[in-house]
Amino acid sequence: MEQRVSLITLAVADVRRARTFYERLGWRGQEVQETIFFQAGGLVLVLWHRDKLAEDVGFDHTVDDGFRGISLAHNVRSNEEVNAIIVAAQAAGATVTRSPASTFYGGYAGHFTDPDGHAWEIAHNPGFRLNDDGTLTLPDFGTK
Amino acid sequence: MEQRVSLITLAVADVRRARTFYERLGWRGQEVQETIFFQAGGLVLVLWHRDKLAEDVGFDHTVDDGFRGISLAHNVRSNEEVNAIIVAAQAAGATVTRSPASTFYGGYAGHFTDPDGHAWEIAHNPGFRLNDDGTLTLPDFGTK
Repeated sequence: MEQRVSLITLAVADVRRARTFYERLGWRGQEVQETIFFQAGGLVLVLWHRDKLAEDVGFDHTVDDGFRGISLAHNVRSNEEVNAIIVAAQAAGATVTRSPASTFYGGYAGHFTDPDGHAWEIAHNPGFRLNDDGTLTLPDFGTK
Repeated sequence: MEQRVSLITLAVADVRRARTFYERLGWRGQEVQETIFFQAGGLVLVLWHRDKLAEDVGFDHTVDDGFRGISLAHNVRSNEEVNAIIVAAQAAGATVTRSPASTFYGGYAGHFTDPDGHAWEIAHNPGFRLNDDGTLTLPDFGTK
């Protein structure tokens, strides 16, 4: 199995509401059969109704409250950019779970959940320099 | 907010066990402060203890059973590759939630959860052709 992720699919209660949220953040996607596809760098982020996704994945229900045990991070190049995106996310309907602040790893980050409770971290991590195309290549920590 | 995901962090109950699982699937990562970082194309997949991640994200607990409302897909280039990875995942300790079979979108896929319940789909989707470097670029569906 190669070290790649092709798609991240987020279960949503209302596809229209979820699409609107990400569009308010500036994302642009395509809709096919009530499924929204966003090109996100080399992978695709998908919004799909929770009942369809749960069935597709092989479960009969989706957990609701609390942290789902997975977090998506969007890294940026400055603390100011972190602040701006958290403000924009809140305006778009996100719940800010942690206001932007310095992090234990020497960076700066804020956290929000989207209207369906999916957790995002917006982070500026000087130790993780973004490539010009926005991709992230790990530094060599020297600790294999 | 640019259309990018920088990191995907999976909450795990036992970092060692989780790392071993992904290593059995052939992944190689780096460990820093009990955190495992896997380069996965242009982003990074991280394994981190669930208590630390929940606190970091701003929640006081992590939900346990059932589908967490998010699925990661790893697309491959043939049905045979789907079968081989599902077999390897099961051997590595995954729970197969759906055996490989034809999908509604004209492809072929199998699903498993890792030892911490994170959902993966291994898919061959002839409509989503992978680039040579393994990245996925959406076709134009003509339905903006």
